[in-house]
Amino acid sequence: MISPIQTIAIVGLGNVGSQLAKAFDNLAIPIQQVYNRNHSIAEALANEINAQAVTSLSEIKTDLCIIAVADDAIETVIHQIPKSVKIAYTSGGVKLQDLERKENIGVFYPLQSFSKGRTINLFEVPFFIEATDIDFAQQLFDLAWKISRKVQFVDSEQRRKIHLAAVFINNFVNHQIYIAEKLANTYKFDKALLYPLLRETIEKAIENGAYDSQTGPAKRNDKSVIEAQTNLLSGNDKAIYELITKSIIETYHDKL
Amino acid sequence: MISPIQTIAIVGLGNVGSQLAKAFDNLAIPIQQVYNRNHSIAEALANEINAQAVTSLSEIKTDLCIIAVADDAIETVIHQIPKSVKIAYTSGGVKLQDLERKENIGVFYPLQSFSKGRTINLFEVPFFIEATDIDFAQQLFDLAWKISRKVQFVDSEQRRKIHLAAVFINNFVNHQIYIAEKLANTYKFDKALLYPLLRETIEKAIENGAYDSQTGPAKRNDKSVIEAQTNLLSGNDKAIYELITKSIIETYHDKL
Repeated sequence: MISPIQTIAIVGLGNVGSQLAKAFDNLAIPIQQVYNRNHSIAEALANEINAQAVTSLSEIKTDLCIIAVADDAIETVIHQIPKSVKIAYTSGGVKLQDLERKENIGVFYPLQSFSKGRTINLFEVPFFIEATDIDFAQQLFDLAWKISRKVQFVDSEQRRKIHLAAVFINNFVNHQIYIAEKLANTYKFDKALLYPLLRETIEKAIENGAYDSQTGPAKRNDKSVIEAQTNLLSGNDKAIYELITKSIIETYHDKL
Repeated sequence: MISPIQTIAIVGLGNVGSQLAKAFDNLAIPIQQVYNRNHSIAEALANEINAQAVTSLSEIKTDLCIIAVADDAIETVIHQIPKSVKIAYTSGGVKLQDLERKENIGVFYPLQSFSKGRTINLFEVPFFIEATDIDFAQQLFDLAWKISRKVQFVDSEQRRKIHLAAVFINNFVNHQIYIAEKLANTYKFDKALLYPLLRETIEKAIENGAYDSQTGPAKRNDKSVIEAQTNLLSGNDKAIYELITKSIIETYHDKL
């Protein structure tokens, strides 16, 4: 029987850290300590969830410290936390074996886009767990299981590949929406007109798969529409139009 | 007072035509005649909605014929329909002034992605209306208003720009999802793990705007993650990764 994590600190109170802190607190899993580079942010959150806002990482003394900081700050932060404290980080892209610390170090990676002011239902969010030792991995799994029903053990290589897919799903989908919003702005139509189409686009891709859901001038290889649309664009937007169009044409070419 | 359209035919029973026919039928707006190149499809739908399946376009004798055919078939189809029948087409990309017919010709363009087996709530779908004469435009507007609460008059130039934005929102977003699905397939993880993130991505973009919603390695210009991710990709996927990353970096560069 592995003893559960009793006390938790959270370091880095950006979107991920602050949402995790509030989610634990809402489920009556108390957070004892919080730390943020900008101390006033730590104090405000500590106040809200009844935790201690520490001014130095050396003061952390919980069973577990979850660090939700930028990838390139992870190593530095780990060095300042007492060795007796187990550490889990929330990054998709950093490999466990690349870190200097080899004991009591693990991963607690939620596959979701967090942002201030939007509350996520964590129960549906996948959590990917990894740790250098099996007991700690199990402790992290059990902790994640309290807030989500989609918890999996995943190694660093696999986590990096899932993270890459998430870049297409989140970052790159968002950039397509951004270009459409710019067109709405340039050509003075209400971008909200596009939202029913956007919602249907993703529900259809989820239901039928994106391969079978593709439509449009590129799918049909309709050269006259493609040329006319290209002429409305310039710069990166034009290059993106041309490249994705080429990729769609080549994806379906054998079937045409 | 402009007399309303009394009788309707629909030509081209692909995704758009068949969904429109059923939507009208559901709202007790009868469709009198339907035509499809493959006559058995016309017969099946005619049976379902109590219409006549004609075998030749010359048999059409309704007040209005809605043609939902491929862009490059529009002109040919128009020529075969009796001159006494008013015609509206459903395309986003074809300009009204480019067609030979100059009278009783209009546009009835729904901004949505239709597919067999998925029923759309047309009430939320924008319809863009245009016609060569103002009375016919008003008739089309009144007809669209029976099935949608988002009807607008829009000229051909503006409609082409909205259609271009729709290509980014639908076709290009879908292709990003397709690449992510391929990664799930190649690396053997369940693509359904990505769907909560996908749904949150678009709801966040809708609520906060895509510009403010951008996150990820490109937004942070995190060169080590970008390089590592690029190395996992090849072909068009790699080129798309590099180009969209460049575009995101340049979008936010001034703000960094």
